[in-house]
Amino acid sequence: MSTSDVTAVALRAREASFELAVATRATKDAALHAMAQALLDQAPAILAANADDVARAEAGGTPPNIIDRLRLDEARLAAMADGMRDVAGLPDPVGVVLQGSTLANGLELRQVRVPFGVVGMIYEARPNVTADAAGICLKSGNAVLLRGSSSARSSNAAIVEALRTAVVTAGLPADVVQLVPGDTHDSVKELMRARGLVDVLIPRGGAGLIRSVVEESTVPVIETGVGNCHVYVDAGADLDKALAIVLNSKTHRTSVCNSAESLLVHSDIAGEFLPRVVEALQGAGVTIHGDDSFADFDWVVPATEEDYETEYLALDIAARVVDSLDEAVAHIRRWSSGHTDAIVTEDLSASRRFTAAVDSAAVMVNASTRFTDGGEFGFGAEIGISTQKLHARGPMGLPEMTSSKYVVTGDGHVR
Amino acid sequence: MSTSDVTAVALRAREASFELAVATRATKDAALHAMAQALLDQAPAILAANADDVARAEAGGTPPNIIDRLRLDEARLAAMADGMRDVAGLPDPVGVVLQGSTLANGLELRQVRVPFGVVGMIYEARPNVTADAAGICLKSGNAVLLRGSSSARSSNAAIVEALRTAVVTAGLPADVVQLVPGDTHDSVKELMRARGLVDVLIPRGGAGLIRSVVEESTVPVIETGVGNCHVYVDAGADLDKALAIVLNSKTHRTSVCNSAESLLVHSDIAGEFLPRVVEALQGAGVTIHGDDSFADFDWVVPATEEDYETEYLALDIAARVVDSLDEAVAHIRRWSSGHTDAIVTEDLSASRRFTAAVDSAAVMVNASTRFTDGGEFGFGAEIGISTQKLHARGPMGLPEMTSSKYVVTGDGHVR
Repeated sequence: MSTSDVTAVALRAREASFELAVATRATKDAALHAMAQALLDQAPAILAANADDVARAEAGGTPPNIIDRLRLDEARLAAMADGMRDVAGLPDPVGVVLQGSTLANGLELRQVRVPFGVVGMIYEARPNVTADAAGICLKSGNAVLLRGSSSARSSNAAIVEALRTAVVTAGLPADVVQLVPGDTHDSVKELMRARGLVDVLIPRGGAGLIRSVVEESTVPVIETGVGNCHVYVDAGADLDKALAIVLNSKTHRTSVCNSAESLLVHSDIAGEFLPRVVEALQGAGVTIHGDDSFADFDWVVPATEEDYETEYLALDIAARVVDSLDEAVAHIRRWSSGHTDAIVTEDLSASRRFTAAVDSAAVMVNASTRFTDGGEFGFGAEIGISTQKLHARGPMGLPEMTSSKYVVTGDGHVR
Repeated sequence: MSTSDVTAVALRAREASFELAVATRATKDAALHAMAQALLDQAPAILAANADDVARAEAGGTPPNIIDRLRLDEARLAAMADGMRDVAGLPDPVGVVLQGSTLANGLELRQVRVPFGVVGMIYEARPNVTADAAGICLKSGNAVLLRGSSSARSSNAAIVEALRTAVVTAGLPADVVQLVPGDTHDSVKELMRARGLVDVLIPRGGAGLIRSVVEESTVPVIETGVGNCHVYVDAGADLDKALAIVLNSKTHRTSVCNSAESLLVHSDIAGEFLPRVVEALQGAGVTIHGDDSFADFDWVVPATEEDYETEYLALDIAARVVDSLDEAVAHIRRWSSGHTDAIVTEDLSASRRFTAAVDSAAVMVNASTRFTDGGEFGFGAEIGISTQKLHARGPMGLPEMTSSKYVVTGDGHVR
């Protein structure tokens, strides 16, 4: 693979994007149904390719949990096909008029949703992201360049091959879905410098991947998915609700970005709440990294600043007692990744102050951090969860995969 | 000035932004009125500082047109104060609920506009941008770091001094408006690397400035204002309207990003239109850089690819005859900067095809390119014209200076 290979696929994507941008919803939905069917029809080839990836990973000593994420089977392929059909069922974001008016001089102004053009996805491990991203990009009118993990390269190639064939049967150019050639870092680098050819890059994966894309890319980036989420149990909390929310936020699924990593407890209720929450968390197998207030509890590890900073993605939680809501807010401002932070309280003015002061993509009141999710929010499809403030923030569905343009119609108007 | 000075002002801006983010509209509007009054009250100090800048520029041999942009007088200060009061009169974008619903499980979901936090402005020449940007950022709840041209450093310092005093009288922290210390490129560099402290950078100025910010910044950037705008005169055009639109787009004001730099004419009407447009443009003092179709006209300079690429910002226009609308679209796709491109036609299906296929921030039908402007669009205030596809596209008013967050309210909800 050489530099020019990446530029060549990007140029082909750009050319194909012009046709996709003006495709009707009917054409795009037909393509999505064909893509779903192709995943099922090509199952033998895709599963054989996946078996190669799994064998290579096993030979390389990859840990079992990563291998599990890599592995495909009939059920997972069927889920990918279902997801594709779900996207077909969602409204087309392209062409939606966001605002419009007739100006004083009679000019008609309309702001209309349009596709970005070419979207680059850089992601790790799971091959199902290949199909999900292709479906969401196609429906939103964007050509996609897919750069998955090299560990999934055979699976991704087989999936993309199936999808490209399907796209053509629906009358769209195959190059609306392409793999980025090469699996060294050079090809990622080239993608990140393809400003003017690639309109937006979306990295999905660990903090290191995302940081490197943000640092090196001249193509605009939408940062996704790093979550150091907090649950603050206020003085005015209902402690039963608080216990359920802390447990659910921490233990429902530990490896995801919207699981809680830190617990803050108001000192007024610490005497009553700490014994209960320690018992419940430890009963669920969670290691508590607590401040001095937890010194009297068995098996609590002393917390360091590193704990406050860490996205454990594991059965660990940092815990601290604070003397006020303001102290909780200050802690969150300092350590939160701006993904999701929650307050548990029955006190309306505390809830108002917390939701105003905490500047995260999602702020939960009396609800688990686990609800920050495109599916839970009713978006039907999700390409990732943006933790940046530009363009999109929080779960990104189809509308977030578009830009807009102004169409201004006159009758010979001049200034 | 050292690196740490820039970090220090950014940290102070961040701290101040927390207070500004939750300020009421009443407080912000009071601050804006105080800022307007301060520009008038401090006129002697501001004009004296400006005289220093002008004297230094004259001694350095700065061209008269640049000096004119640098120069302030009572009338320009009054216009800056009026602009500040106009911003006070605009609706507050912060707190607007963009969408909301009650989910199937009873969770109440609201997506609410919130400020970015800290905005960095990097701009050239005109000191009025200092006041305009401060006003727009304050109203949208953002602390602002202002990095103007070193040629305007005394003027900018005096303006910012007046504004900061005014902000404090309204009960807001002075540090919501700050100058970036230092006038070497190092301070700009430091600002561009202040990811985590600065939420968004908006460069305003020439193509070189904008390109360097886009290349070097790790802070998210909103690209503004480079305009290589086209007027395409279709086979179905009313030639009187076409003539008026071409003339207005090119000559109404040549130094601005929404003036036209290229003319495309359909071959079907070239025989009739070319003599008229050449006469009219040359009569207005415009040099035409034409393709072979213009060979028979006097004083037309042969066009090169460089002409198609150039944003003249002067009384020059590139001109070419095309054989079809598709050829016009292909030319625009290749050369346009994606700012504003216009079609002149009475043919509805040609207009439909052009507006669908041309992917620019604004697409004009039978209207001058000069209408792409926040004031003309009725936005009341404009911080710049975005030519990127992420976040904001086209003229940026107050709503474009905000992000959003999801506030999700439950009653002990867990997954």
